[in-house]
Amino acid sequence: MPISRFVEYEEAPPEVRAVYDDIMATRGIDWVNNFWKAIAQHPPTLKRTWESLKEVMADGALDPMVKEMIFVAVSATNGCDYCINSHTAAARKAGMTDAMLQELLAVVAMANETNAMAAAYQVELDERLREAARRA
Amino acid sequence: MPISRFVEYEEAPPEVRAVYDDIMATRGIDWVNNFWKAIAQHPPTLKRTWESLKEVMADGALDPMVKEMIFVAVSATNGCDYCINSHTAAARKAGMTDAMLQELLAVVAMANETNAMAAAYQVELDERLREAARRA
Amino acid sequence: MPISRFVEYEEAPPEVRAVYDDIMATRGIDWVNNFWKAIAQHPPTLKRTWESLKEVMADGALDPMVKEMIFVAVSATNGCDYCINSHTAAARKAGMTDAMLQELLAVVAMANETNAMAAAYQVELDERLREAARRA
Amino acid sequence: MPISRFVEYEEAPPEVRAVYDDIMATRGIDWVNNFWKAIAQHPPTLKRTWESLKEVMADGALDPMVKEMIFVAVSATNGCDYCINSHTAAARKAGMTDAMLQELLAVVAMANETNAMAAAYQVELDERLREAARRA
Amino acid sequence: MPISRFVEYEEAPPEVRAVYDDIMATRGIDWVNNFWKAIAQHPPTLKRTWESLKEVMADGALDPMVKEMIFVAVSATNGCDYCINSHTAAARKAGMTDAMLQELLAVVAMANETNAMAAAYQVELDERLREAARRA
Amino acid sequence: MPISRFVEYEEAPPEVRAVYDDIMATRGIDWVNNFWKAIAQHPPTLKRTWESLKEVMADGALDPMVKEMIFVAVSATNGCDYCINSHTAAARKAGMTDAMLQELLAVVAMANETNAMAAAYQVELDERLREAARRA
Repeated sequence: MPISRFVEYEEAPPEVRAVYDDIMATRGIDWVNNFWKAIAQHPPTLKRTWESLKEVMADGALDPMVKEMIFVAVSATNGCDYCINSHTAAARKAGMTDAMLQELLAVVAMANETNAMAAAYQVELDERLREAARRA
Repeated sequence: MPISRFVEYEEAPPEVRAVYDDIMATRGIDWVNNFWKAIAQHPPTLKRTWESLKEVMADGALDPMVKEMIFVAVSATNGCDYCINSHTAAARKAGMTDAMLQELLAVVAMANETNAMAAAYQVELDERLREAARRA
Repeated sequence: MPISRFVEYEEAPPEVRAVYDDIMATRGIDWVNNFWKAIAQHPPTLKRTWESLKEVMADGALDPMVKEMIFVAVSATNGCDYCINSHTAAARKAGMTDAMLQELLAVVAMANETNAMAAAYQVELDERLREAARRA
Repeated sequence: MPISRFVEYEEAPPEVRAVYDDIMATRGIDWVNNFWKAIAQHPPTLKRTWESLKEVMADGALDPMVKEMIFVAVSATNGCDYCINSHTAAARKAGMTDAMLQELLAVVAMANETNAMAAAYQVELDERLREAARRA
Repeated sequence: MPISRFVEYEEAPPEVRAVYDDIMATRGIDWVNNFWKAIAQHPPTLKRTWESLKEVMADGALDPMVKEMIFVAVSATNGCDYCINSHTAAARKAGMTDAMLQELLAVVAMANETNAMAAAYQVELDERLREAARRA
Repeated sequence: MPISRFVEYEEAPPEVRAVYDDIMATRGIDWVNNFWKAIAQHPPTLKRTWESLKEVMADGALDPMVKEMIFVAVSATNGCDYCINSHTAAARKAGMTDAMLQELLAVVAMANETNAMAAAYQVELDERLREAARRA
């Protein structure tokens, strides 16, 4: 620890197994990916993180594919390889095509460029945009 | 400069006016927001950035509202206030509701949390996820 | 360079050896880790960095274990693998237990989440908090 | 939204009031700071975030003052003004002195410097450090 | 995808070959590095990115070596290994010596340190500096 | 604290005055900017930071104007307003023209874009580039 030491199902205490079971049931798969097995070293972190993620990523006003693409966008911005891959996989499973992924990555790259420009030029916010951002 | 000094339409050289005209025509509005007026201090940057943005944000495999939401996700991760506001405004104009925005921000926050966890625990990528990320 | 090319003790010029000797003496060990051997390619950087680090990490109002944990927190936030490992090792040597590390990482993850939220929602600072932050 | 629009207690729906009541009771104060009033625009985010934070920041293997200092370290690294202030205030309330804060910020600055160096020099991790980081 | 799957010259469609040919001609070399072969999965991204980069990095008010060093500075700050290496290689080709690289990296590290300090201390900008930054 | 509380010359203890005197003498000016007055709350941090900065920014293999431009590049990438302004002012004083600044910011923006792309596509480093980066 913190270098990934995985808690395998066989050796896991009951509260960890319960989360693993819920992950597999929710996703309809029969295995648990390394992220969960790594943070399972601290069972309360495992439980809290899984429950939060399950709630946040559930179908709602946005569909799950869009949510997974947003996750990829943040992960690419932060340079998190694990997260880019795991959420790209999830987005594909939810229907993202190659063409969608390519456009997603183009937007992410462009956003990182214009974010740097706005910071560098220290652009003052237009009152009209402030109002438009606030209003539904 | 770099503190925002704006190039107003009236004082702008022809190559800058041409970009301003295209921005207004493309968006169907009669004004140009500060970001463009700030980077217009360097006309080649203005032209290149606008043309890239126009191409990237055009309707394609992803619809423009989703693209604007991805822009908000990156901007919130980078803490760029100008960009959060300008792209939230654009996403609303493209149809994003309050409920969608709230879910978007919840995903962004969660992604920043799990990105930090994956980095901290240095989780090794599962071979299965690598394959699944690669395949359409 | 910049890919790590290490300056080994045997080949090191006297000003580099002097720093290496001080590192080993200060830490009570008989080897120098790669970070120092990499930056020793530029002896003034080696000397300045080591002297600053030694001063900053010395026992003071905060004990060394807490300082090492703060170093881990920043390194995880920046996604610096080398630094996460080297300072986790140092924190353990200074007394950090597994339970402490797990709580540390949970705080780091949570902080990255709420930082993103505060940025996304652009929350205005409460006057009371501003005052409370300022006062001892 | 997302620019902070606050949900005041008087206008809050019952599920938001319940969280506000718990925040005030847990902290022994009679007001709620803007962060919570901003994210209360999305009641499930408010509830989930508060419950996670309460669990993560509770007294455990690390004392609350240290946890608040870790929060300040991450927030300074991410440049989140709101979070720097709110958690500095909380750390002070938990006993952090000026001298402790100054050392904390010196460590944060130094960590950001050496993180950048390790990235720039792409230093390969020492096997000995990897082992030492892993072992309690 | 997005894990690097490379589009080799032999299998590339004509619009990709045209960009590859221009990259090789512009740089006076007979091969194309992986970055371009990876983003060539999306030909419009390849074309737009190459044309932007060629324009931005061309000799102008700043000489190409300085531009490549600026690229290294940003890449080290973002922790992008690929970019650190590719632009260090380009800067060397343009004349950067070891001594220059070492000073560059020292500045990058120092800047990351003082950036964190300015954020942590939330230093208010001096009116005199604001004026001086604005004026040529 | 940490919100900027400035240590003015008149009230400063001797070790702080000595640093202020050296800053003014080195720069040939008769005032001290807020950054130093803020960190002077912790005299050892003031002294260590000033001495490091003076050493790093001194004329060497790179001229001071280039070093200040590198500082601006890192500061824009990190979104540090204070630092963007103070180092833009310093770069101008050292000879940077408007045209140079505009090209500098274009490179910074482009670098942030391609850094995000390389992360998103997880491009594997070319062996040839690794070799070329290493060799002077």
